[in-house]
Order: sequence, then structure tokens, then C-alpha cells
Amino acid sequence: MKKYLVEDPWKIIESGFDPTNSEVSESIFSVGNGFMGVRGNFEEGYGGDTLPGSYFAGIYYPDKTRVGWWKNGYPEYFAKVLNGVHWIECKIMAGAEALDLSKSKISDFERTLNMQSGMLTRSFIWHTATGDLHIQFERFCSFSEKNLGAVQIKISSQNYHGPVTLKSGLDYDVWNQDTNYDEQFWEDFASLDSEHGVTISARTRKTGFEVAASTAVLVSASDWKTLTQQEERYVGFEINGSLSSGQEVVFQKLVAVESSLYVDAGKCRTATQHYIQEWIRDGYKVLRKKHVDKWAEKWQDVDIEIAGDIAAQQGIRFNIFHLLQTYRGDDPRLNIGPKGFTGEKYGGSTYWDTEAYCLPFYYHSCGPQVAQQLLMYRYRHLQKAIENAEKLGFKKGAALYPMVTMNGEECHNEWEITFEEIHRNGAMLQAINFYLQATGDYTYVQKNGLPVMIAVSRFWDQRMNYSEDKKQFVILGVTGPNEYENNVNNNWYTNFICKWCLKFTTTQLESFKSEHPQEYLDLIKSLQLTEKEIKNWNEKAENIYFPYDEQRSVFLQQDGFLDKELRPASSIPKEEYPIHKNWSWDRILRSCFIKQADVLQGLYFFEDQFDKETITRNFEFYEPLTVHESSLSPCVHGILAASIGKIEKSYEMYLRTARLDLDNYNHDTEDGLHITSMAGTWLSFVYGFAGVRIKDQILVLNPVIPDQWNQYSFKIIHQKSVVTVEVNNEIVSVTNNSEHPVNIKLYNKAHKLGKEKRVESALNLPVTSDG
Amino acid sequence: MKKYLVEDPWKIIESGFDPTNSEVSESIFSVGNGFMGVRGNFEEGYGGDTLPGSYFAGIYYPDKTRVGWWKNGYPEYFAKVLNGVHWIECKIMAGAEALDLSKSKISDFERTLNMQSGMLTRSFIWHTATGDLHIQFERFCSFSEKNLGAVQIKISSQNYHGPVTLKSGLDYDVWNQDTNYDEQFWEDFASLDSEHGVTISARTRKTGFEVAASTAVLVSASDWKTLTQQEERYVGFEINGSLSSGQEVVFQKLVAVESSLYVDAGKCRTATQHYIQEWIRDGYKVLRKKHVDKWAEKWQDVDIEIAGDIAAQQGIRFNIFHLLQTYRGDDPRLNIGPKGFTGEKYGGSTYWDTEAYCLPFYYHSCGPQVAQQLLMYRYRHLQKAIENAEKLGFKKGAALYPMVTMNGEECHNEWEITFEEIHRNGAMLQAINFYLQATGDYTYVQKNGLPVMIAVSRFWDQRMNYSEDKKQFVILGVTGPNEYENNVNNNWYTNFICKWCLKFTTTQLESFKSEHPQEYLDLIKSLQLTEKEIKNWNEKAENIYFPYDEQRSVFLQQDGFLDKELRPASSIPKEEYPIHKNWSWDRILRSCFIKQADVLQGLYFFEDQFDKETITRNFEFYEPLTVHESSLSPCVHGILAASIGKIEKSYEMYLRTARLDLDNYNHDTEDGLHITSMAGTWLSFVYGFAGVRIKDQILVLNPVIPDQWNQYSFKIIHQKSVVTVEVNNEIVSVTNNSEHPVNIKLYNKAHKLGKEKRVESALNLPVTSDG
Repeated sequence: MKKYLVEDPWKIIESGFDPTNSEVSESIFSVGNGFMGVRGNFEEGYGGDTLPGSYFAGIYYPDKTRVGWWKNGYPEYFAKVLNGVHWIECKIMAGAEALDLSKSKISDFERTLNMQSGMLTRSFIWHTATGDLHIQFERFCSFSEKNLGAVQIKISSQNYHGPVTLKSGLDYDVWNQDTNYDEQFWEDFASLDSEHGVTISARTRKTGFEVAASTAVLVSASDWKTLTQQEERYVGFEINGSLSSGQEVVFQKLVAVESSLYVDAGKCRTATQHYIQEWIRDGYKVLRKKHVDKWAEKWQDVDIEIAGDIAAQQGIRFNIFHLLQTYRGDDPRLNIGPKGFTGEKYGGSTYWDTEAYCLPFYYHSCGPQVAQQLLMYRYRHLQKAIENAEKLGFKKGAALYPMVTMNGEECHNEWEITFEEIHRNGAMLQAINFYLQATGDYTYVQKNGLPVMIAVSRFWDQRMNYSEDKKQFVILGVTGPNEYENNVNNNWYTNFICKWCLKFTTTQLESFKSEHPQEYLDLIKSLQLTEKEIKNWNEKAENIYFPYDEQRSVFLQQDGFLDKELRPASSIPKEEYPIHKNWSWDRILRSCFIKQADVLQGLYFFEDQFDKETITRNFEFYEPLTVHESSLSPCVHGILAASIGKIEKSYEMYLRTARLDLDNYNHDTEDGLHITSMAGTWLSFVYGFAGVRIKDQILVLNPVIPDQWNQYSFKIIHQKSVVTVEVNNEIVSVTNNSEHPVNIKLYNKAHKLGKEKRVESALNLPVTSDG
Repeated sequence: MKKYLVEDPWKIIESGFDPTNSEVSESIFSVGNGFMGVRGNFEEGYGGDTLPGSYFAGIYYPDKTRVGWWKNGYPEYFAKVLNGVHWIECKIMAGAEALDLSKSKISDFERTLNMQSGMLTRSFIWHTATGDLHIQFERFCSFSEKNLGAVQIKISSQNYHGPVTLKSGLDYDVWNQDTNYDEQFWEDFASLDSEHGVTISARTRKTGFEVAASTAVLVSASDWKTLTQQEERYVGFEINGSLSSGQEVVFQKLVAVESSLYVDAGKCRTATQHYIQEWIRDGYKVLRKKHVDKWAEKWQDVDIEIAGDIAAQQGIRFNIFHLLQTYRGDDPRLNIGPKGFTGEKYGGSTYWDTEAYCLPFYYHSCGPQVAQQLLMYRYRHLQKAIENAEKLGFKKGAALYPMVTMNGEECHNEWEITFEEIHRNGAMLQAINFYLQATGDYTYVQKNGLPVMIAVSRFWDQRMNYSEDKKQFVILGVTGPNEYENNVNNNWYTNFICKWCLKFTTTQLESFKSEHPQEYLDLIKSLQLTEKEIKNWNEKAENIYFPYDEQRSVFLQQDGFLDKELRPASSIPKEEYPIHKNWSWDRILRSCFIKQADVLQGLYFFEDQFDKETITRNFEFYEPLTVHESSLSPCVHGILAASIGKIEKSYEMYLRTARLDLDNYNHDTEDGLHITSMAGTWLSFVYGFAGVRIKDQILVLNPVIPDQWNQYSFKIIHQKSVVTVEVNNEIVSVTNNSEHPVNIKLYNKAHKLGKEKRVESALNLPVTSDG
């Protein structure tokens, strides 16, 4: 890994072109708007290493599973993120010479992603055989009009005289790199040409999703000639003219996209034609301004400022920017894919990452309605989660949410994860609880939450069994959050979240019963739930076994953990990191080393139930054993460390995630960005340093500041308010920027902040210090 | 499953042709001779369901691995048994009408495999459009000339007048059904035509093995015309003539095969041409007689007779017959594939089945030399086993023998098996011990045994770790013989065989040191072994932890076994069997149900170290939990049951394996026969009912007889002798059929039986009864 990007508070800048960074840059310079997204591929094409990527929300293909050894219960299909119509294409010719940065002679290359405006620009001088052209690109996926993508190309002749051609198209001859059987996933191509532009559509095989695109190109020079091109999988324009020294031509390519998620299949083409017609009237400049304004407006609610640390500043904004590009929160069928719109790796779009890591970000950045949309995603998949559990032998409406999914069906096939990493089921209820704590929206919980909670509780009820030996209930054969242990018995985290789920469900049922007795009766009748079943859950919850080390007074990650040779991760030689690449799988499994927070994940989720000493003891036992080889590990450690006063450790953990992709720490940024881990970074800042929590609808703040910084500030949404928090070495101030009053608790002192009101407090020093 | 084969003591008879049995019959009617083998495919071809199979010992292809999720340590290649030249081909035409049993009208179909003579015959009347022909086939893979395959076809006209054509060829246009990338595995085809016949050869891709075949056809009628046919992947003859009512024609196709395992690549063609030349001189009849005589001679040493139970009689002979067809014991590079020459399923040829189940059969049926060849196979693979262990992170010459192999390299890729089912390493030493007990051949043990034993001991040494918690050594993350448990800690069987290996190695080293001090020093120096290392093994062996249930006084299969819900396998509803097809994998793992003997496997292997009460207690605890869904399970239970006087149970277990393929119990006989399980069947008879063991070079016998039988007898080899054992309801007699004296122990009474001597005893009734 080498750092090649310029540090800047608002921009990602690549100065000079180095082909070895090509695919990494394609990931980093991705732009999207939650409906569609495109990797930083070059408009003119590229003959070197490239991963072409143009993705559309919710459009997937169920590839047939390929495994070495089939296990009963595996899904037959594996939903894949699809590479769709390549709409940025603008090939450029100077006479007979085609522009291709893998071959052409160029200079003064600069590419910039402006995160404030959401604009991607690129410029360079093309030294053609017969003269030099200055080429400037500008691209955006509109943040205000979700169906709009746009490219502007300005070509200025410095000393070139001759013909110039632009071939601007919509290309459906696309392939997925990630396929099991090397098949093309699109079919039924239909293209047409009308006075307002050209249009193409196609449908996905099997799933039958339709995606249509229309495009028009506005040319600044009226004497240039435009010819329409139409092939089976391609439509576009060839635009010919000529330039002399000092002349320039500007092309503004507008693209309208629509998918059958929003418009009936067969009607997408008409829809995109309408859009394009309208947008031609508006013009590129107006559309661009709307987009830029929308981003500016968004940053009003979500920005984080770190004074005097440009690398950290750039890192955190990069994370926020990409999270907002990935998910809009206006469609309950969508979710946050692990690579967003920046790559096709990992089939499916949704992991427990959404509930465990992303939900707080989207709540605080987009508000309660968007958080609710994320819950609705799982509510809508309840029936499929029940079917998934049935496939594994569970009964009576028990649900197991999939490890990875697109449409509610499981698309993961590794028995030790798919069948055993069942703690994910608990995250669904955690998310409901988070939403309830934040909003106090009991109506949602009672209508949409309880069916999920009951089905998940039924799963836990059946998944445990009574151990005659222990005289307690045990949960056998699981994989906890730490995937460096497989098929263990009594994973502490899993047992704990199981118990919590049962208690949460029975408590909420109890409230519902006393508040709305008739609706309660209707609900339990419709689900064939009995008082006996509920009582049974309560009894079992009280009698679940938890592995514990009496000597060290720490919770044990699982049965038998103390049989391992315990030694710190610091004893692993540097050259053996990361161990998942350098050690055999069995060696990893037998070792004591922890991939990501496991017991500590539980202490983070349920910190209210443990005192600081307990958290500290467990942190000090487990953190040294942890190799953080999941991008989701450091953030949890960072948050916990801050909460127990280990600010140095918290800062160390923060640094591990904040620039993960910008600095390509894991050597895999070329596959796409680590989108869900970006939410973890945000958490480690806001929940870590600022000590934010939501409890009983109150915004709780316990800020600390690392020694390395003098000042930081951020904005977050809580309920209907936007709150600004400013922290420096002496003072913490909290301002309500909205018209709605907001309840906060700063260092344990409650305040009700009215419109535009501000409260200050001296910065608290941490109670426990590092070391 | 339906029984469709006629019961007969010596023959397998299919009377009438039913296409639904086609592929099952192809497996059952396989013939082979340890060098080559062919499924019961029809010579004339078949348009219906068929799995063409023609296999050559030791000829494999390393297919690139395909897994769902890669784990470090997986092998990149997976050796596949290859389908090779299809040499039985004899297409038959009556005029323009081609014979094809999927379309042609036929009657009086009968197919017979005569196990006594090793001859496969088939006959039927073909009702062509213009008259009836009686077609009779005869086929053998010569048991006396390993390179010879032969087919005889007699066509007799009943009322047919007209032309008849035979197309007899060697066809290399063959495919493997089991490929990962749908590639053809043969290339470099070379064919030629000489006065003695036609020849073709090809090489395998990557491995570069060459296999050549030559063929000639002797035609009874001198006026028939023969034309040679030669294509890229095919050579053969077209033979034309005509038949009238009452006339017949006989074709005798001789095929010579050679592979580059025995003749330099490039010279195989010349070799097969020589063979064919010679065999044309001998003639079909002579060659056939030599083959039949050889089988008769073999049966002299190995037959088992069961009076009055034809189904059992047919079953046991079928097993013996196929075991002898699979492995000759004259080439240390070969081994016993799980499907032998009857199918291509399961890549690789060798599992721990060879050491754990097959070795006693081949010792007692083929003698000490063949047993030694099986040991040499592993000795030759020692370096690769060391490399395999290195790949997993082991050091200092530790060896892990592969789970499945062809040439010593691992070709299995399921982490919980490949990396964790390490008890197989113990079976290597078990085999050495068996051979030593049988032969007293210390020279072999010291020269070839010790290097293996030391490397395996080094593996165990590194694979265990000290548990501070238990203050004993533990073995974490293993899969025992019971593959319905994965990644468990302290599998009793694994821990026990580890301890035994260390003790066996140190004991043998001790003997070697005292007997041959200088050779001992040379050996340990060459292996950089120190006295300290040996001492360490002894100490660790003494301090290995074994899970134990104090309450029931039984060994525990693994840590945490008592956390499971314990209920008998008999409580599983019938329709849920087999559970591996009807239950999800996680449900199986969490259940108490056992696939195959695990603790009991250890008690069988090491029965001398346990008293009868201990064996009985463990048997009574584990057997009811066992679902026997491995074909290798019932035999071990049968042997143990007999040894503790549970004769009814032993008989029940015997019946589960004896006719496994003949009656297609597991619904998978179409893929090929369960060759290694056939050795288990033999064991459950000879080691079960007859109570045979070899201890200190003495043939120990403790026969019992099930109520269902009145009499049985069998022959087995021990050292240089062949011994006949006859058992009826009253008397046991043992006869030495050889010139060499043999030491036996009958019901604990020692006898030295001279040439042709016989000893008798009253039948012992079992001490413990069933129930």
C-alpha cells in the first residue's frame, strides 16, 4: 500500500496518473445517490486494469450456488449485485487517434472528488500525434433527482487542428466479474431512438428486473454533426466536428435511468424518455446546481469537523459522504450493501452490519423516518426468515434472519456461518430497541416490531436445549461475532443476546397487554401465541447458562476458551499479520486470537447492565487477544475504550478505521469500498469520543477529546432536531439548531434545549486513564 | 430401492432388463483385476441412462479445486479418478438397424456375473425388424494377465437373414462426469494400425500419464470382411458379413492395455502391440481358461461359506470378489479407492479406510507381502505428508497424512475434515502395529516404520497444547471418526490414538535402541531427533486429558457431550432417516446422534486395554445413539457386539453391510460400489462372528454363531499358512491347509498346527447374552 492521494479537508485529489492505482481509484472515486452508482471508471474507456461498475439499487441476479461440499440447508441461489448499463461512456477520438490513458500520452492529470458538492472532476492534457488537447470531465449522480446521471466534457485545443469525435453511448454489453457460471445476466434488450435522445432497456434473467436508460448530449458548437447509433445492446451518438487552436467544445451528457422497482416493467423506457425531455429543458447547469445545493443542505445536518488534523478530517468526511451516497432511506426494499455502489464483491446487500453498525449513523444523519425504513426492511422479510428457519428444522413460526440477503432469502453458504452465526437474529431486536429508545414510537413496535420479536424469540426458544449436566439451558453449535471460532458451545455473546431478546419481547408484550388489551389479544391469537409460551420464554431466559472465569472474573467467550494457550496478539510476529492470510484455518481456530469484538460486542450493546469495573476487566482481558481482522472490530473497541477512560486506546482504534479505504490498509480497496465499516468509523467518533447514546429518547453526551486534537465539532439529528456539538480542550457546547426542543443529558446533567439554544459545560477528564 | 437380482451362492443374476436399474447394474456388474476395470456398460452402447466407466490403476488428473469459500491450507488441486479409453466397444448392426437396449425390441435378457470364475455374461434375443438374433456376450478382465481385457460375442440367427456388422473399437472420446470445469482430461492422441491389430494411446493433461491400448478381433467366419477405422480419438474395426437362419458368428475381441506407470511414456504402444501379438497366438480360449483357473485358485484361500442362507452367502462373496478385483498388492503406488474401478465419485484413491478397515482383509486374503505393500504406500508418501503439515503451520518434520489422496498430496477441501479429522494420522501407526503383530517383521518397522512413526509423533506433539485450566494436555479443534461432530475439543478417540501413537513410537524406539544401538543412533541423527524430544513425548502421553462421565462411567466422545439432549436413535421417526438427507447440517451437529463408531472405534482398536465391562458399558451408552450413516459403522459395532456376547446385535449389524450394494440400501449404488465398506463387512464376519485377532503373531479365534445359522466356514491366510475354520452349532474346527505350521489360539487355548493338521473344540456359548 502506498498513499498517493492528496490530503485535503473536503476533497479527494489524485494528482498525476499511475496505472498501478487504477482499480483502487475506481473504487475511491465512485459516485452514487442511493438509487444508482458508478465506479470511477473513465468515460473514454481504459485498456489497462479496470473493474467496470455501474449499479442500480435493488437490481440483483440469483446465481446458482457453487460449493465444494453441499450441506443440507444451503440456499440454492446466491443473490449477486449486478453490473448494469454502462451509461458514462464517452469515447473520444482526435482524428483516427483514440483517447486511452493506458496508451495515450498525457500530462497534468488531476482527478478530484469534491465531497462537499458531490462532483467528480478530471482533467489532463492529451498530447496527440498532431497537437495537444485539454480534456476536462465532470460527473455526478444527482443527489436531488435520483434518476439523473450526468457527464460534462470540455475539450479545448491548445495547438491541435483537426477533427474530433465523441461517441457517447449506453452500453449493455456488461459482465459481472463475480459469477459462478460465467453467464451474462441481462437479456431482452430493446432500444429506440426519438427526437429527445436514445433509449435502451434490458431485463435480468430469472429475476426479470427491467432497467432502462435514455440519454441526450447537448453540444456547445452548433455546427457539429450528430449521428445516432443503435445495436442490439447499445445505443448512442457519434458527434463529429473539428477544433482549431484556442477553440473548445463542451458536451453535456444527460442520462435518465429508471428501474422496474419503481415503474412497471415495460414502462421504464417511457419514463426515462419523459425525464430526459424535462431535463433537456432544465439544462445541465440548473441540474448541476440542484445537485450541489442538495449536498450543501445535507452537510448542514451531518458534518464532522476536526480542527488541525487534515488526514482525520478527510477520512471522516469520506466515510460520511459514501454512506450517504449508498442509502437514501426512502425505499424499504433497499439496504446498505457491504460495497454499496462501489464494487460487486459479496453477493447480497444486507448483513447484520446494518442493524449493529449502520442504524445509528442513518438515524443521526437522516432522521427517525429513515431508521424506521431500515426496520421495515426486516419486517417485510419476516415471512422469508420464518421459511429460512423452517428449512433448518425450526417450527411454529420461528424466524432466522439470513446472514446475507437481498430479498429476504439467505444467500450465504458456509455452514459454520449460515447456520450457526445466529446472533444476527438478536441484532434485529437490538435495532427495534434502538429505534424505540430514540423515538418512543410504541405504535411501530407494537404493530411491526412485535411480530418480528415473537418470531425471533420462538427461534431462540427452540435453539437452546436443557443440559442435564449443567441443569441450565445451553446453546450449542454456534459461531459468535468472532468468526475465528466456529461451531462452539455457549458463546457468551450469543447466550446473552438470546436472553436479552426473550426478556425484551416479554416486557414489550406485557406493556402492550396492559396498554392495549384487545389489540394484544388479537395479536397473540393471530400468531397462535399462548401465555404459557411467553411464561416459558421468561423462565428459560432466567436459566440460561453463561460461561464465566471465576479466577479472572471475566465472561468466557465460549465453553473451553480457557483450554487455549492464552498469549497476546502482540506476540505474533509482524510478518504473520494478517493471520487470516498467513495462518492455516485450523491454526486460527485453535488459537486464542479474536477477529472482532465478541464478549466486548455484548458489553458495548448492553453496557447499561454492567458496571465500569466489569467492562474494564473484560476489556483488559480480551482486547490484547484481538487482532481486529474485521473492519468492524476497532470501532467497538474504540467506543468501549472511550467509555472506560482509555482515550489513547480509543484514538488508536479510531485511526485503524478512519482511512481504511483512502489508504488501502487491507489491500483490497480495488474490489470496492468498505461501506458498512464506514458507519463503524462514524460510531467510533460520535459514540466513542463524543460519548453519544440515546436512552429513553434523550440524547446523552459524554465527550472526551484525544490529546492529539484541540477541537472538534459535529452535527447530528435527534428526533426532529439537529444538534451541534463543539468540543475543545476546555469546553463542550451543545446547540439546538432546529425549531424543535430537544432533551439532552450532558455529563449526566439533563437539559431541555429550546429552539437555537445552547448549553455549555467544562470538558470532563476521563475517570480512568490508559495503561 | 427394489431387489431385482436373483439370489444365488456364486452368481449375481439379472433376469429381464429394466432400464430403471441400468446404472445400478453397471456398478454391480463391474469387472476388474487391480490394474484396470470397467463398469457393466453394454458393449454395443446404450441410449438410456448410463455412466460409462473404464478406469486404470494410478491414472488420475489433478482438477483445480472449486470451493464456495476458500480457507488457507486447502489444496489447490483435487486428484480425480479418470475415465479412460473405452475398450469394450462392440457396436452391432443387423442391416441398417443398430442394437441399442434403450430402443431395440429384445426378450429373454439375462446378465450373470459368475464370481467363482470372474466371468460376466449377457444374452438376449434381439427381435429385429426382419428376424431374430440370439446375442451372447462374455467379458473378463484377466486375473492372470493384468494387461488383458477380453470380450466374446456370439450372434446366432434364429430366423434372420441378412447382413450383420460389428464395429469394435478403442474409443478415447471419453469424459469424466466428475469434473470441476467440464474439461476433457486426455490429449496427445496417437493411433496406429499394424498387422496384429490397431493401437491408440493418449496422455493425461497436466499429469502426463500415458495409457495405450491395442486390440484385435478374431472372427469365427473366414468370409467376413474386416475394415480398419482410424480417427483422432478412435481406432477400431468394422467387420461385415451375413447370417442366415441357424447360422452363428463368434467375435473374440482381445484388448491389451499398458500405462506409463509400468512402461516409459512413449513406449506403451509398443508394449500393447507385443502383448496382443502374443495373445493372438494363445487364443481366447486359453486366455479365458487361465483367468478362470486363477480365480479358482484364489478362492481356495479366501472363500467364506454360510450354510443355508443364500442371500448372506451371495453378499459376502460379492464383497470378497470386488475387493480382490480392486487391489492386487503388487504395486506400492496403488491403493484401494472408495469406489475401486466401479465409479469415479470421490477424487483420490485412499482414505484412512485402507489402514482401519482394508488392511486385515488384504493380509488374510493375500498374505503379509500385500499387507506390506499397503504400508509402503504411506511410507513413500511421508515427505508429502510432512509438506502437508508444513502447509498447516507444523514444523520440524511433523507429518499429517492426507484425508484423501492419490499421490500423497491432500485432495480434500472441507476444513472441518481436511484440517481437523487428524485421527487418520493414528491409523497409519495402527497399520504398522497390525503388520508387526501379524508378521513380527521388526526389520520393516525399524527401517520403514519408524520414520513414519516419528513424523506422526511430532505432529501429535505439536498439535496438543497445555491447558492451564485443566493442568493437562488437550487437543482442540478436531473432528473424530464421527463426522456428525465438527471442530470439537478433546475427542476421546483422537486423544486416545494420539497417546497410543506416542507410546508405540517411544516403545519401538526403545527396542530399536537396545537391539541395534548404532542403527538407532544413525536414524535419530538423520531425523534430528533427540532423547529429550522422545522423553517429552512420553511425558505428554502420560498427561493427556480424557473426557469422562463419572456418573455413567463411560468415556465421553468429546468435551461438552453431556450438554446435548440425549435420546436414542430409535426415537427418530422412520421418515426422517437418513438424517443426513432429511435434517439440516446444524441440527445434526447439535444432536447427540452419531454417524459412525467413535469412542467404540477406539475400544475396538485397543480392546486389549479395556475390560469387557468397560466395553459393554460404553457400547450400551453409544450404540443406541448411533445412526450408522457411514457404511463403515455397523461392522465395528458388529465386531464389538460379538466380543461382548451380544450375538443378536452382531448379526443385526452384519446384515446392514453385507448386501449394501446388492440391495442398494443407500440409494447410491449407481455411482459405484462401496469398496472399502466391503472390507468392513468381511471384518464383521471374520473378526465378528469368528472372533479372529492377530496377537504376537498368533492367530486367535473365538468363534460364535448367530442363531440364524447352523454352520459356516472360511479360509484365511496367516503368515505362510492358509487356515480353514469350520463352525457349527456344536463344534469349531481349525485346519492348517498349508505346509507351514501355524500358531493359533482357539478359545484361549494355544495350538501349533502342523501341515494339514486340524484341531477341534466345542463351540463356546457367549458369556454375556443380548439385552
